[in-house]
Amino acid sequence: MSDDITIFSGSAHTEFAQEMCDILGVELNPVNITRFSNDCLQVQLRANCRQRDVYIVQPLVPPVQENLVELLFMLDAARGASASHITAVIPHFSYARSDKKDAPRISIGGRLVADLLQTAGATRVITMTLHSEQVHGFFSMPVDHLTAVRELADHFKGRDLSNTVVVSPDFGYAKVASQFARLLGVEVAAGSKRRLADDKVVIDRIVGDVEGRDVIVIDDEIATGGSMIELLERLREYKVRSIAIATTHGLFTGKAVERLNAQPDVTEVVSTSTVPLTPERRPDRLSVRSVAPLFAEAVKRHHLGSSISSLFSDEVTHG
Amino acid sequence: MSDDITIFSGSAHTEFAQEMCDILGVELNPVNITRFSNDCLQVQLRANCRQRDVYIVQPLVPPVQENLVELLFMLDAARGASASHITAVIPHFSYARSDKKDAPRISIGGRLVADLLQTAGATRVITMTLHSEQVHGFFSMPVDHLTAVRELADHFKGRDLSNTVVVSPDFGYAKVASQFARLLGVEVAAGSKRRLADDKVVIDRIVGDVEGRDVIVIDDEIATGGSMIELLERLREYKVRSIAIATTHGLFTGKAVERLNAQPDVTEVVSTSTVPLTPERRPDRLSVRSVAPLFAEAVKRHHLGSSISSLFSDEVTHG
Amino acid sequence: MSDDITIFSGSAHTEFAQEMCDILGVELNPVNITRFSNDCLQVQLRANCRQRDVYIVQPLVPPVQENLVELLFMLDAARGASASHITAVIPHFSYARSDKKDAPRISIGGRLVADLLQTAGATRVITMTLHSEQVHGFFSMPVDHLTAVRELADHFKGRDLSNTVVVSPDFGYAKVASQFARLLGVEVAAGSKRRLADDKVVIDRIVGDVEGRDVIVIDDEIATGGSMIELLERLREYKVRSIAIATTHGLFTGKAVERLNAQPDVTEVVSTSTVPLTPERRPDRLSVRSVAPLFAEAVKRHHLGSSISSLFSDEVTHG
Amino acid sequence: MSDDITIFSGSAHTEFAQEMCDILGVELNPVNITRFSNDCLQVQLRANCRQRDVYIVQPLVPPVQENLVELLFMLDAARGASASHITAVIPHFSYARSDKKDAPRISIGGRLVADLLQTAGATRVITMTLHSEQVHGFFSMPVDHLTAVRELADHFKGRDLSNTVVVSPDFGYAKVASQFARLLGVEVAAGSKRRLADDKVVIDRIVGDVEGRDVIVIDDEIATGGSMIELLERLREYKVRSIAIATTHGLFTGKAVERLNAQPDVTEVVSTSTVPLTPERRPDRLSVRSVAPLFAEAVKRHHLGSSISSLFSDEVTHG
Amino acid sequence: MSDDITIFSGSAHTEFAQEMCDILGVELNPVNITRFSNDCLQVQLRANCRQRDVYIVQPLVPPVQENLVELLFMLDAARGASASHITAVIPHFSYARSDKKDAPRISIGGRLVADLLQTAGATRVITMTLHSEQVHGFFSMPVDHLTAVRELADHFKGRDLSNTVVVSPDFGYAKVASQFARLLGVEVAAGSKRRLADDKVVIDRIVGDVEGRDVIVIDDEIATGGSMIELLERLREYKVRSIAIATTHGLFTGKAVERLNAQPDVTEVVSTSTVPLTPERRPDRLSVRSVAPLFAEAVKRHHLGSSISSLFSDEVTHG
Amino acid sequence: MSDDITIFSGSAHTEFAQEMCDILGVELNPVNITRFSNDCLQVQLRANCRQRDVYIVQPLVPPVQENLVELLFMLDAARGASASHITAVIPHFSYARSDKKDAPRISIGGRLVADLLQTAGATRVITMTLHSEQVHGFFSMPVDHLTAVRELADHFKGRDLSNTVVVSPDFGYAKVASQFARLLGVEVAAGSKRRLADDKVVIDRIVGDVEGRDVIVIDDEIATGGSMIELLERLREYKVRSIAIATTHGLFTGKAVERLNAQPDVTEVVSTSTVPLTPERRPDRLSVRSVAPLFAEAVKRHHLGSSISSLFSDEVTHG
Repeated sequence: MSDDITIFSGSAHTEFAQEMCDILGVELNPVNITRFSNDCLQVQLRANCRQRDVYIVQPLVPPVQENLVELLFMLDAARGASASHITAVIPHFSYARSDKKDAPRISIGGRLVADLLQTAGATRVITMTLHSEQVHGFFSMPVDHLTAVRELADHFKGRDLSNTVVVSPDFGYAKVASQFARLLGVEVAAGSKRRLADDKVVIDRIVGDVEGRDVIVIDDEIATGGSMIELLERLREYKVRSIAIATTHGLFTGKAVERLNAQPDVTEVVSTSTVPLTPERRPDRLSVRSVAPLFAEAVKRHHLGSSISSLFSDEVTHG
Repeated sequence: MSDDITIFSGSAHTEFAQEMCDILGVELNPVNITRFSNDCLQVQLRANCRQRDVYIVQPLVPPVQENLVELLFMLDAARGASASHITAVIPHFSYARSDKKDAPRISIGGRLVADLLQTAGATRVITMTLHSEQVHGFFSMPVDHLTAVRELADHFKGRDLSNTVVVSPDFGYAKVASQFARLLGVEVAAGSKRRLADDKVVIDRIVGDVEGRDVIVIDDEIATGGSMIELLERLREYKVRSIAIATTHGLFTGKAVERLNAQPDVTEVVSTSTVPLTPERRPDRLSVRSVAPLFAEAVKRHHLGSSISSLFSDEVTHG
Repeated sequence: MSDDITIFSGSAHTEFAQEMCDILGVELNPVNITRFSNDCLQVQLRANCRQRDVYIVQPLVPPVQENLVELLFMLDAARGASASHITAVIPHFSYARSDKKDAPRISIGGRLVADLLQTAGATRVITMTLHSEQVHGFFSMPVDHLTAVRELADHFKGRDLSNTVVVSPDFGYAKVASQFARLLGVEVAAGSKRRLADDKVVIDRIVGDVEGRDVIVIDDEIATGGSMIELLERLREYKVRSIAIATTHGLFTGKAVERLNAQPDVTEVVSTSTVPLTPERRPDRLSVRSVAPLFAEAVKRHHLGSSISSLFSDEVTHG
Repeated sequence: MSDDITIFSGSAHTEFAQEMCDILGVELNPVNITRFSNDCLQVQLRANCRQRDVYIVQPLVPPVQENLVELLFMLDAARGASASHITAVIPHFSYARSDKKDAPRISIGGRLVADLLQTAGATRVITMTLHSEQVHGFFSMPVDHLTAVRELADHFKGRDLSNTVVVSPDFGYAKVASQFARLLGVEVAAGSKRRLADDKVVIDRIVGDVEGRDVIVIDDEIATGGSMIELLERLREYKVRSIAIATTHGLFTGKAVERLNAQPDVTEVVSTSTVPLTPERRPDRLSVRSVAPLFAEAVKRHHLGSSISSLFSDEVTHG
Repeated sequence: MSDDITIFSGSAHTEFAQEMCDILGVELNPVNITRFSNDCLQVQLRANCRQRDVYIVQPLVPPVQENLVELLFMLDAARGASASHITAVIPHFSYARSDKKDAPRISIGGRLVADLLQTAGATRVITMTLHSEQVHGFFSMPVDHLTAVRELADHFKGRDLSNTVVVSPDFGYAKVASQFARLLGVEVAAGSKRRLADDKVVIDRIVGDVEGRDVIVIDDEIATGGSMIELLERLREYKVRSIAIATTHGLFTGKAVERLNAQPDVTEVVSTSTVPLTPERRPDRLSVRSVAPLFAEAVKRHHLGSSISSLFSDEVTHG
Repeated sequence: MSDDITIFSGSAHTEFAQEMCDILGVELNPVNITRFSNDCLQVQLRANCRQRDVYIVQPLVPPVQENLVELLFMLDAARGASASHITAVIPHFSYARSDKKDAPRISIGGRLVADLLQTAGATRVITMTLHSEQVHGFFSMPVDHLTAVRELADHFKGRDLSNTVVVSPDFGYAKVASQFARLLGVEVAAGSKRRLADDKVVIDRIVGDVEGRDVIVIDDEIATGGSMIELLERLREYKVRSIAIATTHGLFTGKAVERLNAQPDVTEVVSTSTVPLTPERRPDRLSVRSVAPLFAEAVKRHHLGSSISSLFSDEVTHG
């Protein structure tokens, strides 16, 4: 039996899938996505899936619900077409933010979506930088959880970082910020965040030495940028010298671009390519580091049966 | 243990849920539906579900994907909140149209959505007029499948129907058209439909005697109305005297309103209330028959443990 | 690991399985089917299944219940014997006729049997001409749904068909009848069927031009032939010139042979080989077209990972 | 919500179900069992199941496969009809004999059938005298496993048993035979059985003192009676004075009646009512002890939430 | 049907279960826990479970594996005994600490144990203070996740807290520490923890104003107390005035008692009663606040169908 | 894709796993088993599992619960690490002794543990000499059930067995004893066991001719040896000449060594290597026959897709 790599892309981020395919030297297979007059979706995979190792590429970026349902339909289509393995490649699994029951009678969305993916036919997931590490445990199928810390660090390497400090916006993300800082050989500080109401966050102070320093703020996701702006204001109270922003998932939704462009002391914004960006959703001074090579490498290693964890071995910590 | 009826509504059609509640004499419980800045949904059920017999009302009307995911989140929230039974009340299950694999490597959407509902926590479904009767078999949980044939027939009762004939747009729907005709005591005819391409349908001719007659066309769903207009043109070739249109699920999407309003010989359009209609999506001469009482009766009978099939007993056929 | 094709046959139709094996050039492996003194079945697969791609051939023909349980036992035996994949090859899936809940408190048998097959260990199904296309959606495992339309059409090709019309016994089957007619390049007509009671059907009239024509009636299954005789009587009222009958699943149970033999104007009956026929269940003028080659080709293509849908590509329609 | 006891019977043994209903003071609800012309079954439950505690009575007696599939259809129908609990009442679970894999590549039928019952919708099982106690563990749902030992013993009580010894046909059944003997206050002996081939059993000798004694042979099931006749011959070599036979499941299939009637020294045969017996399948000198009261009591106790194990408390052993 | 509360306790912490029963006014039912000579467990529930709302009380405290397997056996026994609902009451779910995959090829133990509980028959879980909130999402059944923050705060209320500050040992726990501080009306500070190796943790500094203050350290679990001692050393560098320790799960394993007793400036240690403590595992100056009343209240509310979240409503935060 | 054999061992019996690896010519991969300070386990598999055919070797020997949970964690780790197949190699599945519900409200432990193994990720099991053959049916995954009868018989071959008789301690084990006796060409006898209480067994007498004979007692498991001593006492009443003891699973727990050493007429004790034995748990005169070669052969055959049942073909019986 044949068991070749067969890659399809949903409509969320075809450039990402195409780049993966170019690196892997395989074709990105065509897909027909149609919408019936009653708004129901239909997705047709236009290449043979039988006995293949199928990969469906779809980050859960806005419009999230449309992209999620599209992904579910593609997974189910691959299963019905007798694929031997079906991997959901989800560069940005945005529902990881819904990882706890912090109000009564809500769904823990990250778990629900993990279950829906399995019901639809996914047998494995490759994703990047889940909002919290525990979300890995929401999946009952194997997950390859990649990190972009090294790609983001590479952006800053070779510069003079003698006055630089890495800042995590809150305590929860401090562990990743520490990894990032270690790769750059610099110190780390963290904001002390307090939530006032459902939609109101206050950062009380910055823990660590940031005064007069060149700051690199790192966060997993920037959406409307509200928390980031709050953090920048706090940082300025500490008279930092300059501010760079690094993030894995740069969504830049709502007023994010307008807001970020209005910060004169932000020297640059770096994100990875997990989220597709139209020109109007790109803030000034944005650099995008592609992580498609990392996903392509993970697909290749999985297909060949070699280790993926060894890709990240020097970043592994325990606790 | 208590086991009261507890009803929530998604955002698709709260009027329908409210009308059901008014009839049942219970409160429609509040729901908070929010959207995070990264476009992920969060739904909070704002009334106690513990040990309750919970009903979530949500037709799968446009925007279908948003409404579907919202429904899945509400079901999961009710399960996590220790509801004893969770019924998805889906007045229009639009994905029933995706009931077969008529192209290679597509999902049979109706089956997939049935499975997703179960994964999210639904233990039962109440719905109306599935596109084909077989879709009932896509669900592995109990389904109460209501029909609106009698409500639609009631609209025409008491009129002079001596010159009237009921017309089904195609052979597949002729059985329901026959039930409808029987209730009115009139004859039935049917269009002979042929599909030219994915989005092109031709009705070759009308089978049955329609010339000079007052026609009532009945169909399960009207979306953009393309097939209906095609049928009307064919009917006119037979020199019918007048045309009324009856449908269970009146979506009137796309150019439907414009198209229907442009048919001078269409004397009226009757639909049920399964689909919420904004003023601009209501064609002229539209009458809406509410089926909320029917759904309320089904909820009541189920809760009391009395038969629902007996509601429709004189319409039951076999084969 | 080895992953060879390994074929077993239940007792329903070993000739069919043998023909498949002969075409594929593999051995039909022996099976011991015994019945304990308390009437319980035991089935022993008499060839190694370990890590094999196993196929169990068994149409659900009379005695249906015996054959169904036998199939379930064979599937379970293959699973327990560490087969890597287990395909149920069911040339006639007769329970597809039980595809809707047209009376209260009945089982939708097609769905139940699909679930039983999965419970017993089937990981895939190959079948032919399901009574309705929706039945495909009853299965949660991949199904290769073959059609015999081309094989049946081949029987009539090369003849003078200038006066021929294809007739579908009812509206529901008209789509397949149209495919068949298109392959022959002739017109199609359809009976307008009405059900009087559970066991009483009336065909009111024939829709389409049949007067004086050579008619080929096509239906998915002929069991006792009751509906067919009813249709023939109606056709004669239209003074058709001759009648041929084509069917995928020719069961010819009960009085079917006697009845069909008593129709002098039926020039021939054509069925496929999905149902085994003892001499006394073969009507006069019967031709049987073997579809074992089609099933063998599907097995081969699946095993090699090549497309099966492309086998039928010019017959695919949408909607 | 209502949660009344609702009892249906398959066609295997309606007398048993009727007797249970009479004792419980509830109606035996009607069922329509039909067979389509293609031999497929359809079962309609003709009473409301909604929110009810439903019991389906069907021993797996010949024709076993027909009765099994009928039971599966009834369970599925009850589930689809929104029953709250569905108990399969299987007085004789004959597939318990298929409890081990004593040949390569066979199904362990008892486990498979247990899984099929669950797939079809059973949520609980009440049964009697499983061939081996381990079969209880084949079910993943609760099983109430009744024993008829006391009913069978009651038949012999009040007689002069001073010269009586109980004989088990083999070692495996000796534990139950000991319970039976204890209830009668007599000794127990056992045959030493050896299997020559699939259908050939030899009883080498009798272990225990039987010479000149009045023997009561007890076994769980008598089908064709082959093993029993073999045992009787061996017993005669020990010059036993008289022989009585007691069994829970008296099937008396094949030549059983003829064989048993030909044993002049068999003074009586006692069985329970788990198996329906037509007059020609009743051996001479047969007494039938009804166990319907025991099943009715189990249903009643379960429904009321009282203990069933306490029914048998003095017979419980451990090990 | 009856549906009474029926409570059993494993051997881990019978005092806790007894206290719950006393509060609820129900009997703690007896259980026989035996160990076969091959070290296999057997657990017998010695009270009727049929149709009951069963609760099994067992914290996962040392010996954790013994207690876990014992719990699994009790759940399975309750299911097999026809309990209608089975709640695992796990005051300390210690495997919540295994909540992420921070090394390649390890199990996420919290998720695995959640799945094992479900396989064994649990239909709901009541637990307290999971190590991280995300662990709630590891369960696919409803979880009532209680917090002891108010009970711990009650211990300090009524004292002069004008010089007091609450300290969280790391950033991850700061949110709960803030809730605790809010209840006391005091400030919060946090340690900045860094992991050197698998078993080596360093706390770099304390974030927040602690100099000269009376400190209350709060943590979810104290096992060997290693991290706590490390934190105390750091706190002393800030010249704090006094130190109190509050924890939900006081295990005090290994050298914990010895270590804590050797800290002269620790004025008191407060824990809840989730973990049973033998005299030698109780540090000096330990106060234990019972949370059995909280668990009893949760059981009562669930049984009556009233809200449990409202118990904690003023502590709910969002995000 | 690669699909190599990858073997890990839990801590229960690494020598066994190492011997299997040596025979197969593959490496025994390293595993890190750690215990957190709260007594929770963590297991890390220290070799790549991706796309591998993984085998985890762990007999369920004392401490059984620790070893069971360790095994569950290793299975889950292998699944999370994308192994393609995961076989639990359990030389001694001790929970097979818990195979029936011989008291109310106990778990059937063998079935529960089988389900736990599947939940944790096992896709297949290789084991030896289950306490009863029916336990095979507790597993829903394929099981290769090996027997050590031939290895044990080999120990006695070549000796003068003219005066030898094989004795089974009870009727239930007589079938295996017969196989063993047949391989040695000698007769078989059996003890007649009666259970007085939960922990009290009496062997009434020996069935078969043992007087003056050299006896080889065979049993599946020896734990504390209580039953064995009881049997030996009974045998001595029959004045047997000498006694040898053969067992598959020699646990020798509790006072077993002391007891066995105190039997002067026991000439030897033979067991297989399924259970690891520390020097103090080895009775005098013990010979251990390694069955690691048999397990290695089963792994090899499975991996190559050749039959395992043929390994034992001359021992297979039916019924």
